Amino acid sequence: MNKGEQTRLRIVKEAAALLNRHGYQGLAYSDLMAATGLEKGGIYRHFAGKEALATEAFEYAWKRAVEHRQHDLQSIEDSVDRLKQFVSNFVNRRPGVPGGCPLLNTAVDADDGNPELRKHAERALRCWLMALTRLIRRGQRRGEIQSQVDPPKLARLLVSTLEGALMISRLERKPIALLEGENIVRLA
Amino acid sequence: MNKGEQTRLRIVKEAAALLNRHGYQGLAYSDLMAATGLEKGGIYRHFAGKEALATEAFEYAWKRAVEHRQHDLQSIEDSVDRLKQFVSNFVNRRPGVPGGCPLLNTAVDADDGNPELRKHAERALRCWLMALTRLIRRGQRRGEIQSQVDPPKLARLLVSTLEGALMISRLERKPIALLEGENIVRLA
Repeated sequence: MNKGEQTRLRIVKEAAALLNRHGYQGLAYSDLMAATGLEKGGIYRHFAGKEALATEAFEYAWKRAVEHRQHDLQSIEDSVDRLKQFVSNFVNRRPGVPGGCPLLNTAVDADDGNPELRKHAERALRCWLMALTRLIRRGQRRGEIQSQVDPPKLARLLVSTLEGALMISRLERKPIALLEGENIVRLA
Repeated sequence: MNKGEQTRLRIVKEAAALLNRHGYQGLAYSDLMAATGLEKGGIYRHFAGKEALATEAFEYAWKRAVEHRQHDLQSIEDSVDRLKQFVSNFVNRRPGVPGGCPLLNTAVDADDGNPELRKHAERALRCWLMALTRLIRRGQRRGEIQSQVDPPKLARLLVSTLEGALMISRLERKPIALLEGENIVRLA
């Protein structure tokens, strides 16, 4: 990576942390300048504008979150154990970018405005649901998951329960809702 | 209600709609002035500042949401039917203030800043969980809900699943996640 690319990545990283905590409206030039030590011109030399920077920042934060949730999954053979590990990763592994789940944050932040950011969040959700659906179908092919289970429906239920429990846990500042969600999903 | 009180209520209503769609940072004086037809001074004659207005706006939106979710509940005798009606209200009744669930929106918006608004959201969640817990305990006393069910845990699971499904439905712009959530909760 050359120096320009390094600077660019540093801006995206700092923007991701600001966006994930404070939303699009709260992604302020002044904070970004303070965090990166760059002037406004130095930041926008690398990006077409705030919206372009925000979508890259979201994609960066989402990529980090996916890495955390996928951690060690491929090394697990049984599909049910893989699903359980995915849930455990969601519950127990701190995400790479502070401020909670980038998908939940951006979904709520962008659903009444910012169509560009909303489009990215919607695609992130679609990819996540598709990956879980594929994993459930794999389990059915291998005889590890019952064939009457509806894969997209189970995927949607997993994501609903986990994201809702994360919202409660963050508001309560206690992990109990997430830990209970983990148990219920394990028993399902 | 005298004229001053009417004006005050009109400001809170408009602020609730803006806050619920665009968050605290997106609650702009200019939009509020356009929506109410008042000058900035005319707005802030009624409130100590933006934070005070935002907390009142949140409480207003939350009260409307609770009314929608509680709709007709008291007329239902059986506790399980009452829980099912609550879920159906959540899924099918449009909330009074546009922009989705005020609790989900404010939880995500305020969890990394705005401690005052966060405190109100945390209390709203606590009251909601307590009301559901009481309803489940009532069902247990009356022999309508099995005694081995853990009331606060079931309450937390209901809220997690519904709020997570609402996030997905709003992002997908399709009600499927909510309708599936409703079915699963009905079967539980």
